[in-house]
Amino acid sequence: MKKILNSVKIAQKELAKLSANERNELIFRIASKVRENCAKILAANAADLANASDLSSAMKDRLKLDEARLNGICAGLESIAGQKEVIGEIKKGWVAKSGIKINQIAVPIGVIAAIYEARPNVTLEIAALAIKSANGCVLKGGKEARLTNLAFMEALNSAFLPLGFCSVAFLDISRDEVLELLGMSEFIDMIVPRGGENLVRFVSENSRIPVLKHDKGLCHIYIDKAMELQKALNIAINAKCSRPAVCNAAETFLVHESVASKFLSAVYPLLKEYNVEIFGCPKTAKIIECKSASEQNYDTEYDDFKLNIKVVASIDEALAHIARYGSGHSEAIISEDYSACQRFLSEVDASCVFANASTRFNDGGEFGFGAEVGISTNRLHARGPVGVEGLTSYKYIIYGNGEVR
Amino acid sequence: MKKILNSVKIAQKELAKLSANERNELIFRIASKVRENCAKILAANAADLANASDLSSAMKDRLKLDEARLNGICAGLESIAGQKEVIGEIKKGWVAKSGIKINQIAVPIGVIAAIYEARPNVTLEIAALAIKSANGCVLKGGKEARLTNLAFMEALNSAFLPLGFCSVAFLDISRDEVLELLGMSEFIDMIVPRGGENLVRFVSENSRIPVLKHDKGLCHIYIDKAMELQKALNIAINAKCSRPAVCNAAETFLVHESVASKFLSAVYPLLKEYNVEIFGCPKTAKIIECKSASEQNYDTEYDDFKLNIKVVASIDEALAHIARYGSGHSEAIISEDYSACQRFLSEVDASCVFANASTRFNDGGEFGFGAEVGISTNRLHARGPVGVEGLTSYKYIIYGNGEVR
Repeated sequence: MKKILNSVKIAQKELAKLSANERNELIFRIASKVRENCAKILAANAADLANASDLSSAMKDRLKLDEARLNGICAGLESIAGQKEVIGEIKKGWVAKSGIKINQIAVPIGVIAAIYEARPNVTLEIAALAIKSANGCVLKGGKEARLTNLAFMEALNSAFLPLGFCSVAFLDISRDEVLELLGMSEFIDMIVPRGGENLVRFVSENSRIPVLKHDKGLCHIYIDKAMELQKALNIAINAKCSRPAVCNAAETFLVHESVASKFLSAVYPLLKEYNVEIFGCPKTAKIIECKSASEQNYDTEYDDFKLNIKVVASIDEALAHIARYGSGHSEAIISEDYSACQRFLSEVDASCVFANASTRFNDGGEFGFGAEVGISTNRLHARGPVGVEGLTSYKYIIYGNGEVR
Repeated sequence: MKKILNSVKIAQKELAKLSANERNELIFRIASKVRENCAKILAANAADLANASDLSSAMKDRLKLDEARLNGICAGLESIAGQKEVIGEIKKGWVAKSGIKINQIAVPIGVIAAIYEARPNVTLEIAALAIKSANGCVLKGGKEARLTNLAFMEALNSAFLPLGFCSVAFLDISRDEVLELLGMSEFIDMIVPRGGENLVRFVSENSRIPVLKHDKGLCHIYIDKAMELQKALNIAINAKCSRPAVCNAAETFLVHESVASKFLSAVYPLLKEYNVEIFGCPKTAKIIECKSASEQNYDTEYDDFKLNIKVVASIDEALAHIARYGSGHSEAIISEDYSACQRFLSEVDASCVFANASTRFNDGGEFGFGAEVGISTNRLHARGPVGVEGLTSYKYIIYGNGEVR
């Protein structure tokens, strides 16, 4: 493994010498090699699926590729290549009192390691984001997608061939070896775990290398007394039901008591269309049919068609509930009241705070980043959806004319 | 300790509700309380010095305060208060394809813990930087400065008095308790160790909390064949001799062979004025008197009047030497050759890379930051001198109009 990591470390320096155009061309070449090898990749994926008889149907769906999905992945790569160049950007510049001219310049971080589960699209997305930002990268995917990933890597390697180096490595390693990987700060500058809570916890607790992660996505929608009903219904249903298994989906609605009856009786039949199981506070239970919500419910990221509803007496109560149970991921207010929105946006401490939009927009693609390395709930380095810019560091280059201190 | 940390965590939220002006006034009030209590603080400092008979004279000098130094510290605080406001700044903003308006806003990190050695100025500087950036802070100073620090904290607490909370705590704790502190990620968001290599290593190896640090300052001055002699002499002597104990001082001169004789014979008498002990390569030894430099020498941060000199055949050899031995802290080229400077600035991977200026400028004060939390050789979050901006995180606030995904 050390040999592979060292080769990536060296290749990263070569990659960083390429021009922006050359790096973009490399990403386009990977996309076209993937398209060329479509049949081979789909066959590998079919073999992975055949081996995965014990997976849930949701997991199988995540794992499964077809021509349309493959085209989608390639379009994503091309979109990453088409993003504006981040490396070398002068982020700031000024002349200090001494006369030296200080430029803060974006540079690559170095080598990124991503550890993820069965989604095969992650392999190429992270590889492309790393190439775009001139970082080396080391990938450890889930064993369920092993053959698919190896087929992807074959296409990727052939795209690197004309360059004489390869700054992306796929590690076909065991969990014990992952533990070893987490200690290799000599070769790796940042670790990104992408997957369930267990994976993220395992990585954070064992890593000697900085970890970019999100712990948990326990998101709320606060329906203020000044809500507009149609907007509130659209956003609430979108946030809960459009894709409940993802981290930016809502788990709890907080409803101002003065609109509780109106909102809850309107949202109830919509939730029932999706067979959402509702856990409500006593006031909710007086308006709609629901199970009784416990502390435990308010503290749970369901990732499923389950929902808590709590009627609150004021925005203060909503803010306090979010401060207590929120995971700092995505929070939204639905209100036509200017000051209520401003207060919510200002006081809620989360990576993305929304006024009158769905929490589902906390996403690299929706932010216009082409793709994302992941969503960060860290407070250091990068927060929220992390695209190529989150994969950069900076250095200061300083132009002097003989200045001394 | 948990009780203290929790009170800081709560107080930080109060601090963050203050306006920029109120936070600046608080810092000014601390400076004036320190000035008012000058006699008391100097008496405490004298008592610390009396207890510190086993310290080296350099360490005693670091510890010692007098009225002039105290005024300097207060002026530093006032300069921090006078810096532009960082909290709430819209760092970026754009409209996404969906129509949502995305604003990236600077916010405090939360609670910062600083662990440092005998320099008493650090206590107030870090407290002021934390207040400026609306962060809570927890300070653990060296036991040698204990009484001085307690006197500072008395002045600081009296400045907080009108507010009814205090977001700065000084921990009077043992090394075992420091170990406990490093595990308290529930209360602390970032740890800054400021001190020698042992302290930094102890903190990095034991912390469950992200650490902002610099490992080592092994800095080089490369004197190119196109150097201008007077600039080269000024910068080289400044970088080595103006304050050799600090991390941005130079440890090694790399001299292009075509100017070796000219530069070395001119720099030699200047170095001798400072009694600098020279370790040279065989080519250096042919030009000036020196001891023989080993691998070990090139790899040592002396922090003292000791210097390595190596004659190199080309800029390539200089770049390779820096890549091998440099610590990524501060590196400089002295050259009138445009392309040589550009290449050096671009290829050297360090927090600050200088053309024709002293490495000593890698400093928060010199950068115009008022003061610094420290100099970072991390590649994530912040690199180089870290001022108030390095103590901020960001969040996205998003204005929608009913958008869903």
